[in-house]
Order: sequence, then structure tokens, then C-alpha cells
Amino acid sequence: MKTEILSKEAISRLEEIVGPSFLFLDEETRNYYGHDETEDYVFPPSVVLKPASAEEISAILKLANEYKIPVTPIGGKTGLSGGALSIHQGIGLSMERFNKILHIDEQNLQVMVEPGVVTQTLQEAVLEKGLFYPPDPSSRGSCFIGGNVAENAGGARAVKYGVTKDYVLNLEVVLPTGEIIWTGANTLKNSTGYNLTQLMVGSEGTLGIITKIVMKLLPKNTHNVLMLVPFFNSSQACEAVAKIFKAGITPSALEFMERDAIDWTLRFIDGVSLNIKDEVQAHLLIEVDGNYPDVLFSEAEKITEVLEQFAIDEILFADSEDQKNALWKLRRAVAEAVKSNSVYKEEDTVVPRYELPKLLEGIKAIGNKYGFKSVCYGHAGDGNLHVNIVKGNMSDQDWKTEIPKGIREIFELTVSLKGTLSGEHGIGYVQKNYMDIAFSQTQLLLMKNIKQCFDPNSILNPGKVLPDSL
Amino acid sequence: MKTEILSKEAISRLEEIVGPSFLFLDEETRNYYGHDETEDYVFPPSVVLKPASAEEISAILKLANEYKIPVTPIGGKTGLSGGALSIHQGIGLSMERFNKILHIDEQNLQVMVEPGVVTQTLQEAVLEKGLFYPPDPSSRGSCFIGGNVAENAGGARAVKYGVTKDYVLNLEVVLPTGEIIWTGANTLKNSTGYNLTQLMVGSEGTLGIITKIVMKLLPKNTHNVLMLVPFFNSSQACEAVAKIFKAGITPSALEFMERDAIDWTLRFIDGVSLNIKDEVQAHLLIEVDGNYPDVLFSEAEKITEVLEQFAIDEILFADSEDQKNALWKLRRAVAEAVKSNSVYKEEDTVVPRYELPKLLEGIKAIGNKYGFKSVCYGHAGDGNLHVNIVKGNMSDQDWKTEIPKGIREIFELTVSLKGTLSGEHGIGYVQKNYMDIAFSQTQLLLMKNIKQCFDPNSILNPGKVLPDSL
Repeated sequence: MKTEILSKEAISRLEEIVGPSFLFLDEETRNYYGHDETEDYVFPPSVVLKPASAEEISAILKLANEYKIPVTPIGGKTGLSGGALSIHQGIGLSMERFNKILHIDEQNLQVMVEPGVVTQTLQEAVLEKGLFYPPDPSSRGSCFIGGNVAENAGGARAVKYGVTKDYVLNLEVVLPTGEIIWTGANTLKNSTGYNLTQLMVGSEGTLGIITKIVMKLLPKNTHNVLMLVPFFNSSQACEAVAKIFKAGITPSALEFMERDAIDWTLRFIDGVSLNIKDEVQAHLLIEVDGNYPDVLFSEAEKITEVLEQFAIDEILFADSEDQKNALWKLRRAVAEAVKSNSVYKEEDTVVPRYELPKLLEGIKAIGNKYGFKSVCYGHAGDGNLHVNIVKGNMSDQDWKTEIPKGIREIFELTVSLKGTLSGEHGIGYVQKNYMDIAFSQTQLLLMKNIKQCFDPNSILNPGKVLPDSL
Repeated sequence: MKTEILSKEAISRLEEIVGPSFLFLDEETRNYYGHDETEDYVFPPSVVLKPASAEEISAILKLANEYKIPVTPIGGKTGLSGGALSIHQGIGLSMERFNKILHIDEQNLQVMVEPGVVTQTLQEAVLEKGLFYPPDPSSRGSCFIGGNVAENAGGARAVKYGVTKDYVLNLEVVLPTGEIIWTGANTLKNSTGYNLTQLMVGSEGTLGIITKIVMKLLPKNTHNVLMLVPFFNSSQACEAVAKIFKAGITPSALEFMERDAIDWTLRFIDGVSLNIKDEVQAHLLIEVDGNYPDVLFSEAEKITEVLEQFAIDEILFADSEDQKNALWKLRRAVAEAVKSNSVYKEEDTVVPRYELPKLLEGIKAIGNKYGFKSVCYGHAGDGNLHVNIVKGNMSDQDWKTEIPKGIREIFELTVSLKGTLSGEHGIGYVQKNYMDIAFSQTQLLLMKNIKQCFDPNSILNPGKVLPDSL
């Protein structure tokens, strides 16, 4: 893999493709596109390109094959696994000019959108037409929908509505070799050949560059009920999660936050205050939604009955839009708040939801063994627990040598509980060398061979997803 | 590809693997396993094997690679695209002994099941635990759940609940080369490597043999409302479909039946009678489901308001379980009834649902051009229309030469409407040479290369899905 700065000839040919206004060699721009939200990593590309069409990307990729230049697609730079880091330098390909919602199809409840549209912008645009795009990553205010597809992003509403993959019907993709294809059809059902669409979703920019996305939408819901439930015992909060589903309720959100997560966030953001008893160890934030308020109250009542089997403090029912917004602001800011507090590493563990208490207890025990503190929160309804390992006062040496052993043990635990490494953040750069925990050599070689089918010269987002040792 | 009868040595080694009671060479058995429900095709395998474990299948596949013997997996023999036909002879691998529901996990709302379990058996077993497996193919009384996964089967409830792929979390698969792998994890969310699970779903037994399936379940619904709506104009029935969704309702079933489909079925089955005016051209069968009867009545009322914009006769509301069962019996028997009436070919067209009227009108026009009659019915809520082309009095010569031209035009129409060839039946043997209508050479070669990654010697279900010319 070529990692040195590109030749003058290559640069000049790239400039011809995108035009001089959209090719950047200056350090500031390269540094800006050299990081996402993954820890404190910075890997500046040699050159930043901002193409505006699938045809331009096709020309860039053909040239990249000719010169064997690594190409790293870059979205909203909110990734947590380092998928957008140009770890082998080369071309950093920003998708920000693909920023149009091409067609909201109110007849078929579909939208065709370019990948550089911010997720919240898409949500709001379809809502204006009475439609609902449910996937709701915490970074929705700045992440790109293309990045959501590439990472198979989830978020708080996945528990009822599914993740990004469940909404993607069809993708226009520029293959690493430069051909432009559609992966499927704009239909709700499809049994026509291998599912290239779902192979592309979650492939983290390693199999192709997505240039158009057709997604299904739902009719919007008109009502919801939101409650915040303080637990005196964290494990009990996790136990309550499976019990709620067992009672026949599917909440539209079921979020878990450890005490530290909520305390740190309350200090981090403005305008939200809560009166929490000292003995409270964790909270569940629970939402039910639908069109019939009576039904939602009845469901909230059933949930309350389940919760009363556990040691909880008084439940807070958000009784205004402002209060709902405040609670969601709190939940959405947790990641940033925890990270602002210390150097950290975040793991995106996921298990069948009933195993959550075992996972949480196991993580704390592993932390004790290796001497690290963790702050846990996440989408408990999906069994998806974000584990923030905070450096705090740990020595640099221990941080470097002990933490990877601890992380390995955490992942071994998730896999032993029938879970896996990542629920919604992807593997990218930072988790790739743990992939042997989830997959055998046979499985990893299958994936490597699939990558080879798409990208024979390994130019597209090299050094991601698959372990270095493979 | 070797098509002659297997060598004595190979037979004797296969017998060692499965045991003499589970290897069959007699003509009756080979003929029985030589057909499914696809037209009148019969392709008997050279030998029928009935293995009972992944390890036996692994040994069979390793041997098949050694001798280059084609292997065709066989499920419930209800397929409509010929996926289970041993078109190159070789080994017919019946999965019927994989007939156990291994674990209904009431805590995580999941089930682990072997592929040879009949879909209805699975539905009923989980229902006893208060759980719901929604995919509901019309053949549910005899099809295998493994075949549903292989074909990505849909059925009447897909419109609200999705298709088989939306329930598959993880698969144990014997790869064509004999390795046994799991494709993913037992989690609702997963962003860990390429989605091998979804690559396997719908791959029609060409990429591996599924030996265990982990599926998610939902809490069961307690109530539903079912109505049968007679339309005086078929196109209007199709138009009403998109309007119902536009009104914010997501029915749990929304089925379309042309007049002939319903008439032929009423003659074919016992115990169901309906009084249908002569002028009625088509029916919609509409179901809403949930836990709150008041909500369902209100939704049924909203649907009625939409329907009253069209020329309809009186709506029949099924007011007892018996009447509901009778209407579903009618709907489920349509395929068989239509097929019992004549030699036929069935196409499984799918388009975005708003395009249904154009599709229906186009199909009739193509029929007029080529001189064939078609009977159409299917899952209108998904835009999935089954087109039964009946031979009737057409000459054998025209049937052979004209019909393929007509089918090609029908598929060209579906693709021009942003649809595709198959919504839920798969491509298999009978549609493979139409794949060039939906996919370019680039896409088809990608699929071929993926197949090659999994099955370097092309021993597994050869001659399916991909066109002969590739």
C-alpha cells in the first residue's frame, strides 16, 4: 500500500476531475478531514477531494486503481470506530456536496436522498410531509445519512423500529473499480439475486461509495409518553428491560444510563436539572409512541406495574414537549459529556437483552481486575451497551498495555453471552484486531474474499474492519 | 458439471456418512424429490440423502467437492421458482430430518429452530408461549422455515411486519467447502463485519446449507379486524392500496384478488361461499391487528372512508373466528386453485405499491399482445403481484415461443416501474435467464464472484439464480 504523498501527475489529474476549487492540499484542511469522533486519533489524508457526482467519484476511483492510491470516504465525521480516518493517507473523499434530498415519494412512502444529508435534516423534511424516518442516532444533528448506512447506525428508536438497514431499499454505489451500479430495487420485498444492498449496508465504506439512497418511510406517529425511572440498583435496571418486553410492550425507546453518565451530563449541558437521590445508581428512559393517547397511557401503566417489582424511586413522567426535549437532550449529550471528562475508549457491546445484567456486572469485574473505571449507558432495549472506559488517573503505560487486555475480556464476555463486538458503531480502525473473538479464520477469510471481489487492488478504505493479521 | 449417475465408490462413501437407511437410489424416491411446486418440472436427483446433522452435511459436501458432484438442498418442496430441482442430477439433500424447534427463548423473544420445521408448526409453537412469528407464506402448512430463509419468503403479513429476512438474526451454515460457521450473533443490532447473515438469506441454497436458524419474535397481538372489499374496477382496487397507507394506516394484511382468482378458488375449496355481484372485478382483503379493539375499529373506519372514494360494493366484515378462517382459507388456496385449472407459469412481480395499477394494466395489455390470459392476485400492500399466466387453449407452440417474450415484457415493465423480478419466490431455475433485465453485467459478475468465494467448485445448487450466459 502506497502511503507517501501523491505524485504531481496524480494530483493534477484529480484536479481535472473535481475542479481546482474542490481539491485541497493545505495542512489545515487535511487535518480537519483527518479525524472523526474516535478517541483522539488524527490521520490526515494526503489530499482532500470534494466531488459532486457519482461520475466524478467513478473517475477518481479508476485513477486510484491506476496509481494504487488509498481512498477513504468521509461523511459527517461523527464516527466512533475510525471508519473515516485516512490511516494510509492517500485521498480523503468528503461526501459533503452530496447534500440533496432528491425526492420524497409520498405515494410510496419512500425517500431518495444523497449520502451527505444530515440525518436530522432528513427526519425533519419527511416529517413535514407527515412521514417518519425512525433511526435516530444520538449524533443525528451532524452525522450524514450515508455514514448511517455505511455503519448500519441504530439509535434510541431501534428497539421498536429497527436500525438503518431496515429502511434501506436500494443504493446507488460506485464500486471501487469505478462502475456505478444500483444494488437492488425500490421495493419493500425483493428475492432477486444476492442481497447486495444489505452487503453494502454496514460495510463501512470498504466495498463501495454510496451516492444515492432509497429508503422506506412510515406514517408519522402523533403521540408519545416519556418517563424517566430512577433505580437504586443498576443490575435491576437491566433486569427490568427484558421484563417490560415480556409483559407484551414494545417501547419506542428504552435507554439505560448509569449514575455517573447522568451526573456528568447534567454538569455538561445547560438548562436541564434533575433532583436525584444519592442512592440512585441508574436510570431507564422509556418512551412509548403511537396515535392513540389512551393506548399509550395504558401501556405506560403496564410498564409501571413491571417497574414496581424493582427498587425504584419516583418515576418522572415528562408532561410537556419542553420536558420531553430536555430529557432527550440529556440522553443525547451523554456520550459527549462522558468523553469531555477524560481520555477514554468507547466499546459498543451488544448482547441479547436478557443478558444485560450479566454483561454489566462482568464489565465492572473486568474493570476492577485491570484497574479501570467505566461509565455505561446505551440502548438497553436492544441489549446495546456503550462502555466508556475513562483513563482518569491511570498511567499512560497501563492505559497502553492493560486496557487492550481488559477490552479483549469484555468482548470475550459479550461473545460468550451470544452477543458481538459492535451493535451500531462499526468495527472500523479501532476494533478490527478484536474481530478474531467474534469470528473464526474461515469467516474472516470469507469476508476478505468478498472484499477482494469488490476491490481487487484494496484501494478503498484499506486497513478497516478486517484484522491486520488476516 | 458432472451429470451422470454417481460412481459406486462415491455412493458407498455417502452411505457411510448418512447410514444405509437415509440414502435412496430407487426411482420412486428420486422422482418424489425431483419436483417442487414449480410448474410441471421434474428433475430427479441421482441419489437422495437425508442427513441429520451439520457434521454429516459437512462430510457430504467435502466428498461432493472431491468428486465434483452437484448437491441440491431440498426443503418442503413448495418452491415456485425451482430452487430445489436437481437440474444437474447428483445429490438431492433433503433437510426433513432437521425438524426440531431447539429453543424458544421467552426472555429474549427469540427462537432457535432447525430448517426442516414446517412454518406453521413454528408459528403455533411460539404462539403457545404468547409469541408471534409474523411471516406467513400461503404454503405455511407445508413449507419449511429453512426454505423460507433460503428464498426470503414473505406472505400476507409482510406489509406490516416485514419478510423472513427481517426476523433472521443468525444462521448456522455449512459452507459448500464443508466448514460449519455461524453468520452473525443473536442480537437485534449488529455492525460487526460484513452482513453474512443477510447475504445467506435469499441466496436460494447456492451459498451454503442452513442447519440452524435464530430468529427474533414479537409479543403476540390479541385482536384483529378482517374485511373483504369488492371493487367494480380492478385498477381502482390497486389505487386504493396506496391511499390507505397515505391515510396513515398500516394494515397487517392487504391482499388483492382478481375476479377469476376468487371465482376459481370458490369452486376449488369446500365450505366457503360468497355472494358476489357480476360487476365485481376484484377484491381487497384487508386486516388490521393490535391489542386494542377500539383502535382497530377506528382504523377500520378510516380505511372504510378511503374505500368509499372508489366504486365498491358492500364491505364484508368477518364477524367471527370461523368467518375469518374461511376468508383466509380462500386467500391461501388461490394459488393452488388457479394452478389446478390449467397449465400455467407464475411470475412474482413486485413494484413500489403506487405503481400497481400501471403494472396490472400493463400486464393485461401484454397478455392481449401475445394472446395469453393472466390471473393476478397477491400482496398488494407490498406491491407484490403474482401473475399466473394460464395456458388455456393456447397451442403448445405459442406457449413455448410467445410466452417467454411476454414474460420478458412483463419484467421489463416491472423494472421500468422501479420494481424487480421476484418479491418473494426467488429466481431459482425458471427466472434466471431474465436476470439481465434487472441487473447489468457488472452486477451479475459481482454475484458470480461472490458465489465463487463460497463455492469454488460450483457444487452447490448449480444452475440457479444466475443466468446461463454469464
